[in-house]
Amino acid sequence: MTAVGIDAIEIWSGNLKLDLPETFASVKGEDPDKYRKGLGLEASSFPDVYEDIVTMGANASKRLMERKGLEPDDIGRIDVATESAFDHSKPVSTYIAGCLEQVFEDDFRHANKGERKFACVSGTQAVDDAYNWIRAGRNRDRAALVVATDTALYERGDPGEATQGAGAVAMLIDEDPDVLGLSDEQGFGSMDETDFLKPNQQFPSVDGKRSVQVYLSRMREALEDYESVAGRVYEEDFAYAPFHTPFPGMVRKAGLLAYRHITRNTDIEDQLAEEIGRQPREEEYDSHDEYEEAIREYMDALKGTERYRSWYADVIEPTLTISSQVGNWYTGSVHIARASALMTAADEDRNFEGESLLVASYGSGAQAEIHAETIQSGWKEEIEAIDIDQQLENRYDLTFEEYEQIHNVHDLDKDVEVDAFTQPEGEFAFTGWGRMNERKYEYVE
Amino acid sequence: MTAVGIDAIEIWSGNLKLDLPETFASVKGEDPDKYRKGLGLEASSFPDVYEDIVTMGANASKRLMERKGLEPDDIGRIDVATESAFDHSKPVSTYIAGCLEQVFEDDFRHANKGERKFACVSGTQAVDDAYNWIRAGRNRDRAALVVATDTALYERGDPGEATQGAGAVAMLIDEDPDVLGLSDEQGFGSMDETDFLKPNQQFPSVDGKRSVQVYLSRMREALEDYESVAGRVYEEDFAYAPFHTPFPGMVRKAGLLAYRHITRNTDIEDQLAEEIGRQPREEEYDSHDEYEEAIREYMDALKGTERYRSWYADVIEPTLTISSQVGNWYTGSVHIARASALMTAADEDRNFEGESLLVASYGSGAQAEIHAETIQSGWKEEIEAIDIDQQLENRYDLTFEEYEQIHNVHDLDKDVEVDAFTQPEGEFAFTGWGRMNERKYEYVE
Repeated sequence: MTAVGIDAIEIWSGNLKLDLPETFASVKGEDPDKYRKGLGLEASSFPDVYEDIVTMGANASKRLMERKGLEPDDIGRIDVATESAFDHSKPVSTYIAGCLEQVFEDDFRHANKGERKFACVSGTQAVDDAYNWIRAGRNRDRAALVVATDTALYERGDPGEATQGAGAVAMLIDEDPDVLGLSDEQGFGSMDETDFLKPNQQFPSVDGKRSVQVYLSRMREALEDYESVAGRVYEEDFAYAPFHTPFPGMVRKAGLLAYRHITRNTDIEDQLAEEIGRQPREEEYDSHDEYEEAIREYMDALKGTERYRSWYADVIEPTLTISSQVGNWYTGSVHIARASALMTAADEDRNFEGESLLVASYGSGAQAEIHAETIQSGWKEEIEAIDIDQQLENRYDLTFEEYEQIHNVHDLDKDVEVDAFTQPEGEFAFTGWGRMNERKYEYVE
Repeated sequence: MTAVGIDAIEIWSGNLKLDLPETFASVKGEDPDKYRKGLGLEASSFPDVYEDIVTMGANASKRLMERKGLEPDDIGRIDVATESAFDHSKPVSTYIAGCLEQVFEDDFRHANKGERKFACVSGTQAVDDAYNWIRAGRNRDRAALVVATDTALYERGDPGEATQGAGAVAMLIDEDPDVLGLSDEQGFGSMDETDFLKPNQQFPSVDGKRSVQVYLSRMREALEDYESVAGRVYEEDFAYAPFHTPFPGMVRKAGLLAYRHITRNTDIEDQLAEEIGRQPREEEYDSHDEYEEAIREYMDALKGTERYRSWYADVIEPTLTISSQVGNWYTGSVHIARASALMTAADEDRNFEGESLLVASYGSGAQAEIHAETIQSGWKEEIEAIDIDQQLENRYDLTFEEYEQIHNVHDLDKDVEVDAFTQPEGEFAFTGWGRMNERKYEYVE
C-alpha cells in the first residue's frame, strides 16, 4: 500500500514579537526566570495590524504551493483548523483560497473546502480527514492542503497572557509523501470537560489547574487507546515525541508522565529501581491518596535521574525550540513541535529515514490524539526549506506600550487605530471591511 | 467491497411553530400566498426557551442510539455540523456527548469528536469524513454519529426572516448500512463568495440576489464535476433528487436548471422541441446577453411542459414536505429533504431497493457538493421509525407576540426572561450557565 502522509510543511509567524523575560516580566516586576525557566518561553509572536488567521494561513500556503510547484488544480481539498474564526458561517478556507487565487492563475473551483474546530486538536483532525480522504480513494490524484492557523490571545491580566502566540502551519497531505508517513493506528482520550472554552467570547475562560489535569488525563487515555491498537509503546520506539505545547513547561509534565508509562514493567524500570525504587502500584497502597502521593514522589525522583534527563534531552527537548520563541499557536502548536524536532535532526545531519515520531495532539474541552509517523526519504530537503528561523529573527520587537496597542487592535470589543509596526512585503495583508462586513485581503508585492 | 453509508436517521424539530401564511403574513399585512406559494413555506420551527443546538442534537442522537440498540462504545466518532455554534473553541459534539453520557451508562472516552463549519454544506462534509474514516479502515468496527444542528435565525425585518427554522438531524454512518449506500464519487463546485456570512455576528449578512445566483452556479459546477467522475447524469438515473432547501422556492429554480442540464442532447430534449424548441446553444447567438435571454425564455417554457411538471412532481416535490413545515435548518436542510423523499416512498409502499438518489448539498460562501446514494434493503423500516410528523403536529403554535418574545430570547444581544411555552418531557433541556460561562444541560424525564 502506498504511504500517505505529510509531503511538505510551511510555517508562518506573526510579524511582531513580545520578549517575555525582558519586556513583559520587567513591566510586571517579575523574575524573568518565571517565563524563561518556569513556562519555558522566551517570546510570543503577534500579528501586526494587517495580519490575521487568513493572511498567516494564506502566506504559509502560498510558500508551500510555490515551493512544491503546485497549481490550484493539484489541490482537491483545503481544510482549515482554527479556534480564532471570525465568521460563524463562512469558513476560513474560502478566504484563504480567495487570497491564493489572487496570485495563482487558476482557481480552486472543484476543491472541497472546510473548517474544523476543537480547540488545539483540530489541526491534527484535519490531517486525519485528509489522510482518510486519500485512503478512501476519493482524491483523484490530488493532494490536500491543511492549514492550522490561530491568534491565541487572552484577556489582559489573565494568567494565560504569558502564553499567547500567533502563527500558521500549512501541510500538504499526499500519497508517497516526502516527509512523514501516517498509519491507520491512532488512539483517543476524549471527555466533555470545562477546562478552557470561549462561549460567545473572543478571549477564553480558563481553569488553569483543571486544564493541566485534563491535558494529562486525556493524554494518558489516548496513549492507552493507541497501545490497544498498535501494541505497547517502548522507549526505543520513537526518535522524537512532539506534544501539543501550550507552553514548554506543560510538555515537561507530560514527558515525565509518558516516560513513567512507557518504562513500566521494562528493564529500564528495573535499572532505575536501584536509584529511585520501582514505580508505585496502586494495589500496594491502603488508599488512593497514599498511592497518588507515592506517584508524586516517584515522579520527582524520576525527573532527576540521568536516564530520564537524557531521554528528555533527546526525544522531547528538540520539539520545543520554535514554541519557546513564539508561544502557543493553538491548532498549529503540535505541528511546530514536529517541525522543531525535524529541524534539529536536520541540523545534526541525522540519518533516520524509517524511524518514527510519536505525535501527541490535544485540545481543551477535551480530547487527546496519539499516533505514530514514519520518516520518509525526502524529509531533510523539505525541512531545510522551512525559513522560520529567519522569520523569527526578522520580527519587530515590541515595547510593552506597543504590545498594549497591538492587543487592543485585535480585541474585537475595542475600536482603535494603530499604525502597523512593519510593512507587508511579499505577503497577503488585511485591507479592511467590505459592505457585508466581510474582511478583505490583498497581496502586497 | 462492503457498502458504507447511512444506517439510520433521526430528526428533532424545535418545539415551537410560527405559521407563516396565517400568523406572520397577517401581521405584516401580506398575501399569505407570498409564503405558501412564493417561498413554498407553511411554517417555521423555533427552539423553545430551554432548547438550542445541543438539546436538539442530543435528542435526535439519543433516539437514534436507543432505536438502534447502541451503547457509547459502539460509536467511534461524533461530528457535529453547525453554523450556530456558541463556543469558539469547544465543539458542540463534546456538549452533546456530555448530554448522552447522562442517560447512557458508559462514556464516549475513545471517540473522536469534532465540529465542521461551512454554512449549510458541512453536514454533508461530516458524513463524507465519516465515510472516509470507515473506508480508510480506522473505525475498529465502530460507527460514526453525524449531527447537523442549527437555529437559523435572521435579524428581525431581514428578508430572510420568513425562512427561519430550527432542528437537528442525526445520522449513523456505518458499514453495511440499512438505509443508503454512499460511493467514492462526488462532485464539487466551490468559490470564495460573499453571498451570506456572519462575520463576528449572530445574524447573517445576506445578499439575497447574489445568494440565488451563487447557489445555482455552484450547483451547476458540482454537477459537471460529478459527471466528470461518475459519467453523464440522465433523467432516469434517480428516483429522487434531494437538494439543499433554504426554502422550497429555491429548489424550484434549481430543479429547472438541473432538468435542462440532464436532458440536453437527449431524446427528451428532442421530444420537448416540438413544444418549446430546442435548448439554446451559446454559439447560435451573437452575444452572451442574447443567449442568456434565450435561456430564460426556454426555462419559462420548460417549466410549463407536462414532461417537466411530471418529473418535478415525482423527483423533487417529495423532497420538500418537511421543509415546507419547518423552514431552513441550515446544515440539516438537505438531510430532511432526503428524509422527506424516503418518507414519501414509504407512504407509497414503493419498492426501490437498489435505486438511487442524487443528493445536492450547498453552503453559502460558497460550495455545492453532489453525489449519488443507493437505497439499501432496510430503508423502509428505518424511515418508518422517524416520528417527525408527530413532532410537527405537537409543536406549540406561536402568536406573533410570542414569536417576537422567543426571537428576543435567542438573540445574544438581548437579555430577556420569558417563560417556556412548552414543558420538556423525555428530552434534554438547557438549564443555565456555569461559572465559566459554559451552557449546562439536564435530561428531563
